[in-house]
Amino acid sequence: MSKKIKLGIVGYGNLGKGAIEAIKQTPDMELVAVFTRRDPKNLNINEPNVKTLQIQEASDYKNEIDVMILCGGSATDLPEQTPYFASMFNTVDSYDTHAKIPEFYESVNEAATKNNTTAIISVGWDPGLFSINRVLADAILPNGENYTFWGKGLSQGHSDAVRRVEGVKNGVQYTIPSESAVDKVRSGENPELTTADKHSRVCYIVAEEGADKAKIEKEIKTMPNYFADYDTEVHFITEEELKRDHSKAPHGGFVIRGGNTGAGNKQIYEFSLKLDSNPEFTASVLVAYARAAYRLNQEKQYGAKSVFDVAPGHISPRTREELRRDYL
Amino acid sequence: MSKKIKLGIVGYGNLGKGAIEAIKQTPDMELVAVFTRRDPKNLNINEPNVKTLQIQEASDYKNEIDVMILCGGSATDLPEQTPYFASMFNTVDSYDTHAKIPEFYESVNEAATKNNTTAIISVGWDPGLFSINRVLADAILPNGENYTFWGKGLSQGHSDAVRRVEGVKNGVQYTIPSESAVDKVRSGENPELTTADKHSRVCYIVAEEGADKAKIEKEIKTMPNYFADYDTEVHFITEEELKRDHSKAPHGGFVIRGGNTGAGNKQIYEFSLKLDSNPEFTASVLVAYARAAYRLNQEKQYGAKSVFDVAPGHISPRTREELRRDYL
Repeated sequence: MSKKIKLGIVGYGNLGKGAIEAIKQTPDMELVAVFTRRDPKNLNINEPNVKTLQIQEASDYKNEIDVMILCGGSATDLPEQTPYFASMFNTVDSYDTHAKIPEFYESVNEAATKNNTTAIISVGWDPGLFSINRVLADAILPNGENYTFWGKGLSQGHSDAVRRVEGVKNGVQYTIPSESAVDKVRSGENPELTTADKHSRVCYIVAEEGADKAKIEKEIKTMPNYFADYDTEVHFITEEELKRDHSKAPHGGFVIRGGNTGAGNKQIYEFSLKLDSNPEFTASVLVAYARAAYRLNQEKQYGAKSVFDVAPGHISPRTREELRRDYL
Repeated sequence: MSKKIKLGIVGYGNLGKGAIEAIKQTPDMELVAVFTRRDPKNLNINEPNVKTLQIQEASDYKNEIDVMILCGGSATDLPEQTPYFASMFNTVDSYDTHAKIPEFYESVNEAATKNNTTAIISVGWDPGLFSINRVLADAILPNGENYTFWGKGLSQGHSDAVRRVEGVKNGVQYTIPSESAVDKVRSGENPELTTADKHSRVCYIVAEEGADKAKIEKEIKTMPNYFADYDTEVHFITEEELKRDHSKAPHGGFVIRGGNTGAGNKQIYEFSLKLDSNPEFTASVLVAYARAAYRLNQEKQYGAKSVFDVAPGHISPRTREELRRDYL
């Protein structure tokens, strides 16, 4: 076997932890170091061969790490970190602020092109696998409509929003795809649907002692942007129930395209994920695309890339011969 | 807009007809000619700008056709036709004899490499889109299991088999995925399942007058390889019912991978198709990959390729900027 691809991880949140687990499952890659802004001594990584280092030390590892897996957040970490690390390393990241992807791409592309590195941006499931399916389905069935549904899943942003309501001690919010909307789309009707038509929202709330539950419920259900347009349920539970039943981070969703070919034959294309752990799955996608970043760089394909630029075989540990024989 | 990609079609069966329809839906490609072994005068193509020509005339069109879409069958046509046409044109085909793909690849690769053409083999949905999903899922969730289910769909091979039974005037066979098997796989149990565990078979038979229906049913249900191991239903219907209810060629299926990440979190990856017309959908995939064959050839990526070698963006008519902005 040829030499293993050497990886670094930047950031030790849920995504970084998921990446450590995902790398252990790969036969052809190994983790060299985890870089953090915290005091590295306080990370409990428990992997004897993995260094824990400060983020500023990364530049010393230019020759020891093939691909850096960037596990920071999209709001403030990645817009800074990806161009910075792409000036020294091949990178993958999960940048997911859809509206700002074009400018993010430009700044990463400039850094990577200048330094002959390869940076695959916006990797994960949405953006990522869902994006691939939106593009394939659109290319294959030009006469049709794409639909993306999210959930059932815990939404971080909406959970934060309910926790800011007065009288709420703790809480979580699940986004639920509307079954009737999914059924309509699967039937090939190609209906017009808003995001609110496609989803409902369910909140599990721990109220502070003596808080006015009716008021909390009303405030949540009428919150503009987050809940007002949606069919929303609010359930009050205890802190123990919250810990017991709602401490995982499940997620998932569907991409469906209904298309027409010939004299009106309906063709339904569907991709879906049902994930027990959103961060562990996203990290698994990042790790597979780290393999592609390394290979594209070996082929001198420098600059910023997205999942649209990566052939499926490039993320697989298997040889093309094996893939053609056993997977085609 | 840049010049349109010029296409030819070889073979005027259901797949070739589907390709004509699919090309009409593309903004950036146009059909130049259909080549046939029959007398071209007898083809009723009804497209004033499309030539109908004999297959031997194709070599005169080397400079007028960018990609040839090969719509012949896998048993005898493509093993001969793909290497022959790949020596003159970029090609796409839907070669689907899984066991013989490696040798088919070698013979096509030799012809294409020698002549600086690009030949994408085994394009469609299985092999094709299903293959892509088997590879992506395996790369992302190494600790897991892939499952492929086919149906509900009309199987040509099994329909031929029932029609050979004595006393059968006409008939069709549908392959049906077992709901309980699909549910088990979707739950992430990763069960051991044979092809017979995963599917049942339903036959609609028009018996000849006076034929012994019990004997027909028994002969079908005990037919080795085709039916003996399967849960099989046999229904007798009239010729009119057959024409009315069973003259379409629907098909579809699922690729599901159940994987585990971290400390046993279940992650379910699923891709599915529900097709009113199998040949029209397969043709639509071929036409989209014709675009990729042309582009890969422009990039001097010569030789035989499979869907594993084609980045998603390469089959899309949209620019990379548009894809990043609207589809990522």
